[in-house]
Amino acid sequence: MPKPPSFTARAPGDPRPRMIAIDWGTTSLRGVRIDAQGHISEQRALPQGILQVELGGFADAFAQHFGDWLAEDPQLCLLSGMVGSRQGWQEAPYCPCPADFSALCQQLLWLDVPQGVPTAIVPGMSSLAHNQVDAVHDVPDVMRGEEIQVIGALRLMDSRDGLLLLPGTHSKWVQAQNSTITGFKTFMTGELFALLAQHSILGKTLDSSAALEEAAFIQGLDRAQSPDTLSHLLFGTRALSLFGALDPAQSASYLSGLLIGQELHTMPAPAGSRVAVIGSSTLVQRYSLALRHVGCEAVAFGDEATWAGHHAIYDHLTQTTTSTPQSPP
Amino acid sequence: MPKPPSFTARAPGDPRPRMIAIDWGTTSLRGVRIDAQGHISEQRALPQGILQVELGGFADAFAQHFGDWLAEDPQLCLLSGMVGSRQGWQEAPYCPCPADFSALCQQLLWLDVPQGVPTAIVPGMSSLAHNQVDAVHDVPDVMRGEEIQVIGALRLMDSRDGLLLLPGTHSKWVQAQNSTITGFKTFMTGELFALLAQHSILGKTLDSSAALEEAAFIQGLDRAQSPDTLSHLLFGTRALSLFGALDPAQSASYLSGLLIGQELHTMPAPAGSRVAVIGSSTLVQRYSLALRHVGCEAVAFGDEATWAGHHAIYDHLTQTTTSTPQSPP
Repeated sequence: MPKPPSFTARAPGDPRPRMIAIDWGTTSLRGVRIDAQGHISEQRALPQGILQVELGGFADAFAQHFGDWLAEDPQLCLLSGMVGSRQGWQEAPYCPCPADFSALCQQLLWLDVPQGVPTAIVPGMSSLAHNQVDAVHDVPDVMRGEEIQVIGALRLMDSRDGLLLLPGTHSKWVQAQNSTITGFKTFMTGELFALLAQHSILGKTLDSSAALEEAAFIQGLDRAQSPDTLSHLLFGTRALSLFGALDPAQSASYLSGLLIGQELHTMPAPAGSRVAVIGSSTLVQRYSLALRHVGCEAVAFGDEATWAGHHAIYDHLTQTTTSTPQSPP
Repeated sequence: MPKPPSFTARAPGDPRPRMIAIDWGTTSLRGVRIDAQGHISEQRALPQGILQVELGGFADAFAQHFGDWLAEDPQLCLLSGMVGSRQGWQEAPYCPCPADFSALCQQLLWLDVPQGVPTAIVPGMSSLAHNQVDAVHDVPDVMRGEEIQVIGALRLMDSRDGLLLLPGTHSKWVQAQNSTITGFKTFMTGELFALLAQHSILGKTLDSSAALEEAAFIQGLDRAQSPDTLSHLLFGTRALSLFGALDPAQSASYLSGLLIGQELHTMPAPAGSRVAVIGSSTLVQRYSLALRHVGCEAVAFGDEATWAGHHAIYDHLTQTTTSTPQSPP
């Protein structure tokens, strides 16, 4: 396995780009080129998730989509997301939580790449949860790709602490203290919504393509505060439809409110606190509404958090390693 | 709509059968003939659920499968289950809960049937739950087919009170006091298990056809006592698999334990109490194990509860109505 290279930041006048930052997920491949001044100079997004790449074909697929950028001799190329999973390019072992930023940098998985650009996969993180129940049962949690967004959002907020929420297929709630990720939890909220809308009895009376109906969403949020388990609350969506209390668009929003509400219910942010919400605009809108409904403030981030996280690693590597030049791997 | 007929019980020497009892669900059609002595003399089971019958085709389908029984001139034919839903033969309005046995009998939906046998659909039941949270949000619950099993199980136990559990696609917990169904709750446990095993990320590392692994099932039951919402606990199944802590057979049992455990967690039966569990032997086995694990006693019932419930209605109708003969509808 290649060893980590040592870097120094390029001289201010050097016109070559700093880095290529890639987020390679299950169903999509996105990348940016960060120029000599530290700005994003170009972006690419392709429907080439890791599931669309044959095992052993990752180097070729990467060269095909980003070979021209690699030819510009950037100082670093970083990849984050599911590309580091067992089904990806190469498995990057999870970095155990709690972990600070430099621990993550030390555990970058350096790849052999023919183009001569030092290239690494950002590891995911694993945790054993810290409350008593979880400690008793030793149930781990994992994430890949969210850790870099958290680092980026903290940098954009110029903060070392925070509660961060990354909604999606598998929503993550992440706690950071003193630039250390101290804990996180995954909720299958997005996947459950899709499963229920597409395959369950609820789907028969639900229009998942409808726009958000705010009143029904709030009704679902409030209902989710019940001590009842989700498997009971979900059936209420069906019963309300049967009695004509929810039309198909309202049903979809109510169900969304139920699922998101239970996330908030069991991972409470104290009223008045600020939560960074990182994700697509549609999801950020829903979670921000939910957070405001329980008296919290939401600060929204999109893709910029990902790229800021990658850039933070570049800065870390070029500032903290020895100034003695070494050959790249 | 036909009016209810009046009955008197047949003379002891009358050889004609008492009744035909039918349970017509979403995916199956089962029936029994109850003879002059009150015993089940014949059973039939067909894969002809209401989804397999065209709208308007129910009378013909019924005559096709049970015409020979109807020709024996039974005194009564009763149908229970989804046959009384909007997608069934004819919609039987829900009987509001709480309801005692005679309320249910008064709300039987009598059908026009050409064969001249008085035939009725047993109504389902609807409830607004009674705890404060539910009352605030006015979320109803519904069942169709379980009400008759509850009546039957109480009769078989010679009891007027009890906590009854009917596991299945949509599990029901039912409370009875003084021969009155006072409340019930539905959990989408069976449907969620199937959805997750067939369509979710959990399905990738789960063998839902494997036999129950008792230790993993208990591990899931214990984990379900966590205050965390199901959408977080479910992801733990994935993480435990990733770390090699659960093999595919264990994953299926653990997931089953999680889902059943959350049912028990939020619908607690006090330790030492007795719960009647009515269902298929596979499900009764799992729920009985779960109940014993929390210190309760499980009393198991199968199909006999359904038929005992039907027979109880026969007895009620023939004992309580006027002895003046009236023509059947």
